Amino acid sequence: MKIPQHPEPFDTVCETMNALGARGRAAAATLRNASSESKNRAILAAADALRARTREVLSANAADVAAAQASGLNAAFIDRLSLDAKRVEAVARSLADIAALPDPVGRELARWTRPNGLDIARIATPIGVIGMIYESRPNVTADAGALCLKSGNAVILRGGSECIRSAAAIHAALVDGLEQAGLPADAIQLVRIQDRAAVGVLLAGLNGTIDLIVPRGGKALVKRVQEEARVPVLAHLEGICHVYVHRHADPEMARAIAFNAKMRRTGICGAAETLLIDKAVLHSHGLPILGDLAEAGCEIRGDGAVRAAFPAARPATEEDWRTEYLDAVISVRAVDGVDDAIAHIETYGSHHTESIVTADAGAAERFLAALDSAIVMWNASTQFADGGEFGMGAEIGIGTGKLHARGPVGVEQLTTFKYVVRGTGQIRP
Amino acid sequence: MKIPQHPEPFDTVCETMNALGARGRAAAATLRNASSESKNRAILAAADALRARTREVLSANAADVAAAQASGLNAAFIDRLSLDAKRVEAVARSLADIAALPDPVGRELARWTRPNGLDIARIATPIGVIGMIYESRPNVTADAGALCLKSGNAVILRGGSECIRSAAAIHAALVDGLEQAGLPADAIQLVRIQDRAAVGVLLAGLNGTIDLIVPRGGKALVKRVQEEARVPVLAHLEGICHVYVHRHADPEMARAIAFNAKMRRTGICGAAETLLIDKAVLHSHGLPILGDLAEAGCEIRGDGAVRAAFPAARPATEEDWRTEYLDAVISVRAVDGVDDAIAHIETYGSHHTESIVTADAGAAERFLAALDSAIVMWNASTQFADGGEFGMGAEIGIGTGKLHARGPVGVEQLTTFKYVVRGTGQIRP
Repeated sequence: MKIPQHPEPFDTVCETMNALGARGRAAAATLRNASSESKNRAILAAADALRARTREVLSANAADVAAAQASGLNAAFIDRLSLDAKRVEAVARSLADIAALPDPVGRELARWTRPNGLDIARIATPIGVIGMIYESRPNVTADAGALCLKSGNAVILRGGSECIRSAAAIHAALVDGLEQAGLPADAIQLVRIQDRAAVGVLLAGLNGTIDLIVPRGGKALVKRVQEEARVPVLAHLEGICHVYVHRHADPEMARAIAFNAKMRRTGICGAAETLLIDKAVLHSHGLPILGDLAEAGCEIRGDGAVRAAFPAARPATEEDWRTEYLDAVISVRAVDGVDDAIAHIETYGSHHTESIVTADAGAAERFLAALDSAIVMWNASTQFADGGEFGMGAEIGIGTGKLHARGPVGVEQLTTFKYVVRGTGQIRP
Repeated sequence: MKIPQHPEPFDTVCETMNALGARGRAAAATLRNASSESKNRAILAAADALRARTREVLSANAADVAAAQASGLNAAFIDRLSLDAKRVEAVARSLADIAALPDPVGRELARWTRPNGLDIARIATPIGVIGMIYESRPNVTADAGALCLKSGNAVILRGGSECIRSAAAIHAALVDGLEQAGLPADAIQLVRIQDRAAVGVLLAGLNGTIDLIVPRGGKALVKRVQEEARVPVLAHLEGICHVYVHRHADPEMARAIAFNAKMRRTGICGAAETLLIDKAVLHSHGLPILGDLAEAGCEIRGDGAVRAAFPAARPATEEDWRTEYLDAVISVRAVDGVDDAIAHIETYGSHHTESIVTADAGAAERFLAALDSAIVMWNASTQFADGGEFGMGAEIGIGTGKLHARGPVGVEQLTTFKYVVRGTGQIRP
């Protein structure tokens, strides 16, 4: 593919981007009433095309990886970017999983009849055109493309410049699938302009053609999107997730959940960042947990009580309670019961996912009811905050806003609805 | 009440407004878990207080009306602004109706169990703090306040300066109700600063305390809100509603629906603005409709075919198809079947409400499926586009956006949800 090497004039960027919007809007009108069968056929054909194009995808990816290495990007970044034959096969299987999901479009969400005989139904419909902005994971190209297609939406994908060759190769497979199913190729478009201004134009809504923006990536990206977008955004800025060990927690359960919530994978948004422990069980329940974490190489930052009980802990600052480490670091605070834990989370949390460990149903229900987070858990690891784990199939992201959808955003959350009213000649008195 | 007569310094406006936001946020934390009983008691007590304060409300309203007359505002405006004892009683009854609605908070929207035993429930929760911006109807103060309270949300009401005395008197009754039920008085706050800058500060989100803005009023107000708001907005800019008379329509039904859709009340958003008639029945079905409308004083603006059939029609311009008259004027176009009607509506409509009149179920279902409007109807008047008529009780507004809620916005639509996950010690593999 041709990658523009020099920034283009702003007018050219606008024109090119707005043309993508217009083509997406036209494709969306077709997709809105596309059959489940044709959408699934396109996704399955894309999976086959991806397998057939494996060499091409790996060669494009090798070029991306070489460029990233030449730019001095770190090992974690290179790992997220890198594909091999096994990963390509996993992407193809993920497409097949999305094809196997029930079609979210056309679901009857509610239906009732009015005393005057009007029959009113609330029916799930696609949102329209979605702008997806992501960073270096090439598989997002396939997942986001297929999730949007499954939900009847056109999508405009804008991947990070570091993965653009890989994204283009995967995108070609998606277009193969669309064409084989007789669906418009513009249903899944890829932004090829690497100019940063292209993102700004996308965030402005491409002349009113974009209905929703989904950013997926680091905090800087999400923050820019939330600040600049002139259209609705589904996203979470950060996941400052809490595990609260209540004084009536089973100590072994608390130990297993706290360790898993922090250490299973430290870089995902559902990873715990702060551990709250009831003062009454700081020694009995807390010390084994802190010992496990320290032994696994996790840095512990505690308040005074925690440091008194576990001297290896470094002091936690006010800033620590507000920090999403996404790393093997945890802040730990001793609290005075469930209300104190709730107050801490409401003050410092990011309304993503919080879990209480306790055998006391009353304390658990108080915690679950009082917190204003997208996901609240009882006796489970915060790492379950994931569309796949929720049984939604794949997810395009996780939302912590209040409107439309919170938590994992899967194909159902990529739909809106309309009211269909059937009458027999009713006029309003 | 004291009404500031001179614009205040911008810093003072910001400080005062942001303080309203902080108090609203604190009230919302209490309301989130308030019992249905206490919310209903507050609303019913407010209705009683409003009745008890009738003289005070009417006296405040008389001052508003006198000021509006002195400013030379027109008769329609004065009518919307004016209260009498009967209207005050209607407002009180509307409060009682809202109290009688089922509590939308805590509804279990979905629940399922995962293979690993995790029990996942999607539970309706309040949104938080809502900013309500409206114009001259004093009853909106009571309706919006009670709808937000019923749905567990704190609200900050900003009424037009022309109704501020009436709004303040009604607001006092709402606060009486909150206090009698032991709920925070800050659950329903009224902006008393008349400075236009106050609206700008509200639209910026009051330091992150506002979760949603609902504007209700004319197009200029809604446009400003949509353009300036930095938080989500639920609204409709305009309702360019269509009635389409298909060639298989029952002529008498078409006549009754078209007349009602246009003329029952011309100033509401669900009023029809454009009539589409199949060419094949332009004479048989169309002429009686146009005759009825003309006789009732409705101005008709037609395309060439319509004017040939009905010479009294004035010529419709391109602009007419995009115009929400909110008056006794209608644009009329002859079309070639259902696909032509759909194309017209998608090109010129505002995605509010459209109705097809036909005895042909196939044509009707095609119309209902193809259109991307919040409400699509078959054999019914577009004037049914209303929360009360939909059986939702009162509505705070009607939305035509794609996200969160479309169509009438009642108490259910003023909630969001969270996931409550109950486990028995599950950790993620």
